[in-house]
Amino acid sequence: MRLTRFTDNGLRCLIYLGLSDTDPTPAGHIAQMMGMSEDHLVKVVQRLAALGYVRTLRGRGGGIRLARLPEAINIGEVVRATEDNLQLASCFDPEHNDCPIASACLLSCALDSALRAFFAELDRLTLADLLRPRRALSQLIEQQALSA
Amino acid sequence: MRLTRFTDNGLRCLIYLGLSDTDPTPAGHIAQMMGMSEDHLVKVVQRLAALGYVRTLRGRGGGIRLARLPEAINIGEVVRATEDNLQLASCFDPEHNDCPIASACLLSCALDSALRAFFAELDRLTLADLLRPRRALSQLIEQQALSA
Repeated sequence: MRLTRFTDNGLRCLIYLGLSDTDPTPAGHIAQMMGMSEDHLVKVVQRLAALGYVRTLRGRGGGIRLARLPEAINIGEVVRATEDNLQLASCFDPEHNDCPIASACLLSCALDSALRAFFAELDRLTLADLLRPRRALSQLIEQQALSA
Repeated sequence: MRLTRFTDNGLRCLIYLGLSDTDPTPAGHIAQMMGMSEDHLVKVVQRLAALGYVRTLRGRGGGIRLARLPEAINIGEVVRATEDNLQLASCFDPEHNDCPIASACLLSCALDSALRAFFAELDRLTLADLLRPRRALSQLIEQQALSA
């Protein structure tokens, strides 16, 4: 059980943009600073833009920036929107279920409660909470810039 | 984010064995009744046996049966023991981390809290709780036996 690389990179991208409150940042720069593939990041950014979390600006001086204040970006919502599959077991999906006892089994209810508890924790946080160690995070990014 | 097929089949196997309190059941029979591949189930059973949840008996009349009472099989423990990877993001694993801000970032703490909340829900349940709709579950298995 783990988050997809897509969600992981989406969260990293949002954290980077939340730390850099200056001009729009090119995708290649974010990818280099945050240890991601640029090709993958471009796909992630397209989704984050479609979801209204970031804005992309084309042309000279273009790049990516947050489309909302960090306080308005809920981490639980981001994870729900970027994970492509939250069906923890095959019985969550009636179309692809292959377990004959699914209709009476309590396991899917149990897993559903567990998943709700998981997201209840993440729903308590916004991007602003993750940016609280701002100085330490910025220093680590500066070190990465020097070593790149 | 989803459980592995290994965990899913492990839980199905325990539920089946919890319902059949008779003689040891051959792996092929469990696989057929519960809609699983027998080859995969054999691997799952080996792990469940090593963990002390089931006992395998060889020879004529052999098969698999629970090694503990259903009340003594905690669902959270089973899932922890059968999932091969609970490192939700790359920053959970210092050896394979590729994110330069991991050492100061609060995301891994947030995901860790969410994961603990997930397991706190499953830790409240034993196999006996999942077997409570015993009659309905047994009827579904009988229907499967008739259609097999």
